[in-house]
Amino acid sequence: MIVNSYEGIVGPLDRTIEKALKGDHRSIARLITMVESESVSSRDIMKKIYPHTGNAHLIGVTGSPGAGKSTFLDKLITRIMENGKSIGVIAVDPSSPFTGGAVLGDRLRMQNHSLDPDVFIRSMGTRGSLGGLSRGTYEAALILDACGKDVVLIETVGVGQSEIDIIKIADTVALLLVPGMGDDIQIMKAGIMEIADVFIVNKADRDGTERIVREVNIMLDLQEEKPWRPPVIPTIAENGEGVERAAEAITGHWQFLQNTSEGKRRKYQRLRIEVEEILKREIARIAEKAWDRQIETDILDELFARKKDPYSVAENLLSEFIVR
Amino acid sequence: MIVNSYEGIVGPLDRTIEKALKGDHRSIARLITMVESESVSSRDIMKKIYPHTGNAHLIGVTGSPGAGKSTFLDKLITRIMENGKSIGVIAVDPSSPFTGGAVLGDRLRMQNHSLDPDVFIRSMGTRGSLGGLSRGTYEAALILDACGKDVVLIETVGVGQSEIDIIKIADTVALLLVPGMGDDIQIMKAGIMEIADVFIVNKADRDGTERIVREVNIMLDLQEEKPWRPPVIPTIAENGEGVERAAEAITGHWQFLQNTSEGKRRKYQRLRIEVEEILKREIARIAEKAWDRQIETDILDELFARKKDPYSVAENLLSEFIVR
Repeated sequence: MIVNSYEGIVGPLDRTIEKALKGDHRSIARLITMVESESVSSRDIMKKIYPHTGNAHLIGVTGSPGAGKSTFLDKLITRIMENGKSIGVIAVDPSSPFTGGAVLGDRLRMQNHSLDPDVFIRSMGTRGSLGGLSRGTYEAALILDACGKDVVLIETVGVGQSEIDIIKIADTVALLLVPGMGDDIQIMKAGIMEIADVFIVNKADRDGTERIVREVNIMLDLQEEKPWRPPVIPTIAENGEGVERAAEAITGHWQFLQNTSEGKRRKYQRLRIEVEEILKREIARIAEKAWDRQIETDILDELFARKKDPYSVAENLLSEFIVR
Repeated sequence: MIVNSYEGIVGPLDRTIEKALKGDHRSIARLITMVESESVSSRDIMKKIYPHTGNAHLIGVTGSPGAGKSTFLDKLITRIMENGKSIGVIAVDPSSPFTGGAVLGDRLRMQNHSLDPDVFIRSMGTRGSLGGLSRGTYEAALILDACGKDVVLIETVGVGQSEIDIIKIADTVALLLVPGMGDDIQIMKAGIMEIADVFIVNKADRDGTERIVREVNIMLDLQEEKPWRPPVIPTIAENGEGVERAAEAITGHWQFLQNTSEGKRRKYQRLRIEVEEILKREIARIAEKAWDRQIETDILDELFARKKDPYSVAENLLSEFIVR
C-alpha cells in the first residue's frame, strides 16, 4: 500500500471509501471500478461499505431493445429529481459488439443527465453476451446505496438472463413493453412477466396499445392473487406523457414494501441470495484453483482415454481440501 | 437395495446399467430419470457409464421459437437413419407454463419418430424458466452416447442461457434462423451467432431469405479467420428441401473435428468444464447444507440490521469445511 504522508495512518483506499460515503462521485467511480475488476481489495471495500447500505430504493428497469428504455429513464430521472431525491444509474450493456451502435445511441439519449452533477451514471458489462447480471452490478448498486443515493436505477437490456437476475437486486422491477412486437416475443418474455412489479406500455401512441394492456391484465388475472397487483401504465416517454403516473406507481410499490411484511420478506430473501452468491463465487474460485493444479498433470489425457472419469477425479480433488 | 435372487449378486441397478449399455430403451430411460432427479445413485451410474462414452456425435440444434426446429429435426432424423445410424434425441423444454401449448405442438410434430423403436426421444427441463441447460441434460447425453447411439441430438429452445450452454455439450451446434424476424431479434441473437458451427436458414421460401444469408456471411467475414468456416444453408424443412445439405454440413463438421487438432482441443476443453462443473456442484451442495444450518439461527436478522455483512458470513461458513 502506498502511504501518503499527508493522510497519516489512513491508507488511500480508506480515504477513497470515506470520500465516497460522503457522496464524492470520483471516489464512488473508483470503488466501482475496483469492485468490477474483482481487485484484491474488493472484498475489503464491500465489507466496509455494507454497514451503510439498506436505505436506497433499488429500481430495475428492463425491456426489449427498442422499447424506449433510455428515453423513459431520462424522463423518470427528471421526475425523481424534482422530488428532491439523489440518483445513481447503472446501465448494463450487453457485451456483444453487435449492439455497440444501439447502446451508444442510448447513452447519447441519456446525455440529458450525463453531465448533471447530481446524477451518477455508470455503464457495466454483463457476465457474458447473454449471461445475466454480473456480481459487480449488484455491488455497484450497494456502493451507490451506501454513498447516499436515495434511488438507484438499474437498466438492463431485455436479453435473456439479465432481466431475470434483476429481481435478485431490485426492490421494484419495471418492465417496459411496446405495442406490436409480435406474439413470439411475448411468449419468449413469459418468464419475465412474472418478475414485474410495474408494467409500462411505452410508445402508447402506436396501434395495439389497448390490446397489449388487455393481454397483460388477463395474464395478471390468471395468476394467483398477491398482495400487490402490478399496475399497467401506458406512457409516451418521447413527450413525457404518462411518466408521472409511472413514477408514482414505482414509488407506490416502494411504499407498499415498507408498509407490509412483503418488504421484509423480499429483503430477507435477497440477503439469503446474497450470501449464496458470494459462497458460489468463492467456491468456484477454490475449485478452479484446485483443478488448475491438477491440470498440469496428465489427468486430461487419462480422462480423454476414459481411464478415469470426471466424477472420481472431482471426488479425489474435493477430499484434498474439504473436511466433512 | 432390493436383491433379486434371480439376479444373484448383481444388484438391480447394475442390471439396469448392463441392459442400458446393450441399448435397451426402457433401461436407458430409467437411468436418465435417476440421474435427472439427482438420486443418490446418480454418481455411481455416471461412474459406470463414463468409460463407455466418447463415441457419439453430439449435435445441438437451437433457434428461436417459430424457427421450425421440430420439423427440421424430424427430417434430419430420417436423413441420419437412412445412413444407418442410431439416434437419441433430448428435447429441452423451457419450463415456463406459457410455452406449454407450443411445446406440445412441437412434440406432436416429432411424433413421426416418437413411436420409432430405433429412435430414443426424451424431454428434459431447463434449470429455470430461462435458465440454461441443467447438468442432467449433459448426463443424459452421456448415457445415450454410452448406450450405443451414434448420434445424439439435443434440441434447445432459443431463449437465453440454454443456447449458450449448448456449446459446453455439443460437438456441433446448428443454429436455425428464419427470414423476417426483425432486426432486434437478430441483435438479441448476436451472442449466439458466435457459437454456431452450421447456420440453417429455415423457411427459405419466405421473403428476406437472401438478405439473412448475406447478413450472416458478412458477420462471418468480420470474425477472425478460423479453420472451420460455418456454412450457411437455406432449407425448407416442411417439404425437406435442403435438409440433405444441412445433414452433410453437420457430418462434415464432425469429420473436420476428427481430422484436425480442433476436435481434440474441444474435447479437452469439455473435459475441463466437466470436472469443474462437478466440482462446483459438489462444493455448492456442501455449502448449501452449511448455510441451511446457519439460517436456522438469527443470522438473517443480524444481516438485516447490518450487524454482519454477507462477505464475512460467507467467509466464516467456508472456513468451517475448507482447508486451504
